[in-house]
Amino acid sequence: MSTNDIDRLIQLLAKLPGLGPRSARRASLHLIKRRDSLMTPLARALEAAAESIVPCGICGNLDTTDPCAVCADPRRDNSVICVVEEVADLWALERTASFKGRYHVLGGVLSPLDGVGPEDLNIDRLVGRAGSEEVKEIILATGATVDGQTTAHYVTDRLADCGVSISALAHGIPVGGELDYLDDGTLSAALKARRQV
Amino acid sequence: MSTNDIDRLIQLLAKLPGLGPRSARRASLHLIKRRDSLMTPLARALEAAAESIVPCGICGNLDTTDPCAVCADPRRDNSVICVVEEVADLWALERTASFKGRYHVLGGVLSPLDGVGPEDLNIDRLVGRAGSEEVKEIILATGATVDGQTTAHYVTDRLADCGVSISALAHGIPVGGELDYLDDGTLSAALKARRQV
Repeated sequence: MSTNDIDRLIQLLAKLPGLGPRSARRASLHLIKRRDSLMTPLARALEAAAESIVPCGICGNLDTTDPCAVCADPRRDNSVICVVEEVADLWALERTASFKGRYHVLGGVLSPLDGVGPEDLNIDRLVGRAGSEEVKEIILATGATVDGQTTAHYVTDRLADCGVSISALAHGIPVGGELDYLDDGTLSAALKARRQV
Repeated sequence: MSTNDIDRLIQLLAKLPGLGPRSARRASLHLIKRRDSLMTPLARALEAAAESIVPCGICGNLDTTDPCAVCADPRRDNSVICVVEEVADLWALERTASFKGRYHVLGGVLSPLDGVGPEDLNIDRLVGRAGSEEVKEIILATGATVDGQTTAHYVTDRLADCGVSISALAHGIPVGGELDYLDDGTLSAALKARRQV
């Protein structure tokens, strides 16, 4: 049956989020069948990325350069910093192409149960950035979870003396969402934040 | 935002079965965070597997040796050959540890619509193996799909002159299955193949 090299590949693939042991087996067979078109290129891409990707010293984004492309872009607005939990959130916001300021990646959320305290997050550097003359507004874009909101509160407290305006993402009905399927919390938030038309 | 090396990694990961663009992004961030424990080992495992894995010249299984471990194992029963569609099916049967004969991987199913004819499958070599003195029984373990069953019929015809006994996997209720959730075809097959208790 499958021997060491295949087993090892399956074991490693099974550690990826979204792949279990069964789909890792399927993926490994898929790869073996496409040795030249997918398997070898993927091995090279992994190695290249492992070598070249570094965290940005300013915002915490991941990129092949430090500072990252967002921080290095002179056309972006220095007066607004959007605070996100993870790099994935930064990428999600970038895909919308609707934000042209800078970012700050916290690297997680406060979570006493998991032993994550303020000193584990990239907060001190945010306070430093917010203290700069240029920065006028900090947008808190942490998740609408208990931990995300707790983190947002904590960050707000820490930024109190910086003299910047602090805002947070709006709560409401997701675009394309049907009322029927929404949870009560979202519906009451949308009702509370209703706007004049 | 993400640049070439990351984009390329995401694109390649998204080609794996079970991963779409969104989960490929998640997987790539997961990998970048676990550079030494997962990313580099995965790159090496892919490269090692790409180099070492070969199809078995006898049965069509994939392994690091040719003949594969199953074909090379002297303790296995030479008198029974189990015919499967794909290597994944062989692995699935091996996991049950309930079959101790040899295998033969067809490499697919007959599918006129997709242009897959008998010459595209590993059938000639099966006929050759079935013609050997040692072989007494061929178990057809193709899928219970239209294409799988068509292929089983075709293989049966081709083996008619070999003088071997030909059998097929039983149809019936899956172990743990509830009648209520089963399709009509499976239920009638199970009824037809009922056995005395």
